[in-house]
This record gives sequence, structure tokens and C-alpha cells, in this order.
Amino acid sequence: MADNGYVEEFLATAVDAAKIAGETKHVEHKGQVDLVTETDKACEDLVFNHLKQHYPSHKFIGEETTAANGESELTDEPTWIVDPLDGTTNFVHGFPFVCVSIGLTIGKVPTVGVVYNPIMDELFTGILGKGAFLNGSPIRVSSQTELVKSLLATEAGTKRDKSTLDASTNRINNLLFKVRSLRMSGSCALNLCGVACGRLELFYELGYGGPWDVAAGVLIVKEAGGLVYDPFGKDFDITVAQVAASNPSLKDAFLEALKH
Amino acid sequence: MADNGYVEEFLATAVDAAKIAGETKHVEHKGQVDLVTETDKACEDLVFNHLKQHYPSHKFIGEETTAANGESELTDEPTWIVDPLDGTTNFVHGFPFVCVSIGLTIGKVPTVGVVYNPIMDELFTGILGKGAFLNGSPIRVSSQTELVKSLLATEAGTKRDKSTLDASTNRINNLLFKVRSLRMSGSCALNLCGVACGRLELFYELGYGGPWDVAAGVLIVKEAGGLVYDPFGKDFDITVAQVAASNPSLKDAFLEALKH
Repeated sequence: MADNGYVEEFLATAVDAAKIAGETKHVEHKGQVDLVTETDKACEDLVFNHLKQHYPSHKFIGEETTAANGESELTDEPTWIVDPLDGTTNFVHGFPFVCVSIGLTIGKVPTVGVVYNPIMDELFTGILGKGAFLNGSPIRVSSQTELVKSLLATEAGTKRDKSTLDASTNRINNLLFKVRSLRMSGSCALNLCGVACGRLELFYELGYGGPWDVAAGVLIVKEAGGLVYDPFGKDFDITVAQVAASNPSLKDAFLEALKH
Repeated sequence: MADNGYVEEFLATAVDAAKIAGETKHVEHKGQVDLVTETDKACEDLVFNHLKQHYPSHKFIGEETTAANGESELTDEPTWIVDPLDGTTNFVHGFPFVCVSIGLTIGKVPTVGVVYNPIMDELFTGILGKGAFLNGSPIRVSSQTELVKSLLATEAGTKRDKSTLDASTNRINNLLFKVRSLRMSGSCALNLCGVACGRLELFYELGYGGPWDVAAGVLIVKEAGGLVYDPFGKDFDITVAQVAASNPSLKDAFLEALKH
């Protein structure tokens, strides 16, 4: 199934789907809050319809479909995992970190990844074993080896209960003593792509929406020479909503810094 | 001095200067850390030379010149206040929030503002009494009236002593209970422009570099219908490194939230 010809075609189809969805976003980019769910669902339909037309036997997991129908189990079948609109708050505000994220797993292994930011017209792509690209040019993670010179990204998250927020800001406080500075862009998939192309050295996020936020980005980071791991040192699990990413040189120091 | 014809010409000259400096940035955008000060200084020279050629009698305050020669006093004379590279860490990393900021004060009143992001090719401009623009189109602050639906921006700052950092993360913790979400872009001038065009509702920063970070952005926010104020309710002073901005509806609630 996963021979090269097929996979290249899967990528091309996913890029087409992302650009079709991105077109919609561009047009409605000044939408109101109550239009977002509708736009989100419409974009997911566009992406799924395009992919299903080409690959009727494949499985599909999407944020909107999951929200409507409950959890979809990830199987060994070729499965498209789609976030039609990562960075919803940004979308509503016109803040430029918005993307369509489309990942394909085969045998549960991320095999194709597409992250498209229609506002900045940046297309991040990756194929397992074939490298990662930004608008067609190869990308690599940063070569930084020192935490103190590293730019960190994370997100405030959506939970507002006191214990989650206190833990979150305590973690940020602790990390700020150790890294160069902190960015919060509002898009998990674009943070992963930021690590992949060296704009960021370090990223972690706890409690994001679901596997659709990371399915594409995780492959793109790895294909750019980076590592994706659980922020507390366990095995990374795409179905558990916590992720960290960096180049290989920074992993141990980053995990150590995340402990406290 | 500040009649309309003159001021329009001041703006056009400042836009030319920003674009000349932005060109340099674009070329060297993947530079190393040790090239930044050099690039910064070279950009400041480009901007100052261009402006001085047109306005030899004006005064000039710039980040690099001040770093080299000490504080420059702001007088009633027409004074150009320039940050040739706001978002230095972003510049080094290729993170897309980088800009040239050029403000002109006349009688100490911000009169012309230009903020140019060469990576995203976004040019924010404003003239006192004449409105604010993004790439030539009029911009307005958000019409949001509720803090809980507002997107907040701030920065982690550059100070890493324990009391500053603890106060900073405590403030963030407190605000996260009250706003929709938080962004950190790494550029004070672009945060102000983000408020001006409604991408952000709220921005505050304590301890930024100097008046060059805000001289242009403050005018652009005001001309877009926003307010710029001291985050702790005093009169805003361009020479004191603390600033807050929002639309008029959110000011009181934001100041209240910043108290705790």
C-alpha cells in the first residue's frame, strides 16, 4: 500500500484538499464567532469530500465529525486525520496563524503530512522517509544546542480551571529562566511546523484538541530532522493530548526543564 | 510646520525609509546572532540617512544611536524616533513578526507613524487626525466589548530576575482567567498594530526597550480609534517603558484586570 508512487499521489491529493479548504478560509477570514463552527464544518466537508472521491476505501477522522459522532478509533487502515481550521481564535480575529492540517497514517504510522496557512501562503509538507518542505524547499530543524539561546513556543490552552492554569503559568515561569524567549501563536500545527523549519527551537503543548492538531505536524518535524516526544518522558502517543518537539540536541535539556 | 502638505510628505519619506531598511532585512533574514547588531546598526543608518537627506534640521532618536551615545532628550522639535529592527529574536529565528518602526513627533506629539513588516509585506501607517491604514486600506480597532471574548497580547520581556519574572507570570495567570486567549509575537510595534487593525483586542507590555518601540504604533492605534494608556492608570508617557492599548470600551475592564 505505502509504496512510493502511492504516497506521492496521496500527498498531492492532500495538498489539493488543503488549498481548496484554504480558499474558503481566505474569503471568510473576517467572519464572526458564530460563523466559525459552520465554516469549520464546511471546510472539513470540502477536505473529506475531495479525499473520499480519490480514496473511497480509506478511513477518516476529523475534528468536526468527532465532535458530532464521538471518538473514532485509529486503526491500521490508511486513515486521514484532518483539522480543517487550526487556530480558531486566530481565524475569528484575523491573526495570521491559521491553517488546514491533513495527516495520513498507514498502520498507525504518520506517512503524509500537509499543513497549509492560507493567510501567509505557506505550505508545509512531509512524506515518511522523504523529507519535509516549505513551499517546495527542504526544511531542517534548528542546529541550536543551548537551551538559553532557544526560542520556545507553547499555548495558554482552553481550560480555565484554577489548577490547570496555575500549573500552566508555573511551568512557563520556570521555563522562562532557562530559554531565550517565549512565543504563543495560537496554532499547534503551525508551532510544530515552526520547529520543523527552525523558526522555533522548542515547543510543548498540553491539552490540545485531538490527534488532528498534530497528525501532520509530527511527521513534518521528524522529516525535518527533529524529534517529537511526550513532554514528561513517556512514549509519544498521538491519541494523548500532550506533545513536545525539538531538535535531537535539545531533547534531554528540554525534558529536564519541563520536569520542574 | 505641521500643516497637511508637510505631514503627508513626512509620511511618504518615512515609508520610503522603512522599505529601504526592510529590503536589507529580507536579504539577511537568516543571519546569525552576531550579525544582528551589525544589521540593526546598518538599517538604522539607512533610515537616518534617508530622513536626514530630506530633513537636515530635524532631530533623531534611534535605538542603536542611543545604545552608543546614551539617552537623547525628546524636545518640541520635529523628532524622528526609529527602531530599525523590532523583534530581534524573531529576526534571528526567521519568525515572521519583524518590523521597522518610524515615528515622528512634533511638539512632542506623535504625528506620523510607519510600521513595516517586510516578511509579511504589511505596511501600517498613520497621520495625526487622518486615520490609520494597512497597505493603504483604513483600519479600525475591534468593536469587542467583553474581556472574556478578547484576545490579549503581551511579551515575556528580556529581564530574567526572579522578582520581575514572578510578577510577570502572576499577572499573566490572573489575566488568563478573564480573557479569551493570549498571544506573544515578540514585537511591541506589531502588537500595537495588531490592536489597531482588530487582530488583537488587548495589549500591554512592561519594560520594553525604549520610545522607538512605541512611537509609531501609539499613533497608529489612536488613529484607528483605539486608546493607548499606562497599564496602571497613570498618564501614558512615551519615555516610560510601559504601555497598554485597546478600544475605548475595554479600557476600564482591562485596567481593572491589570490591577490584580
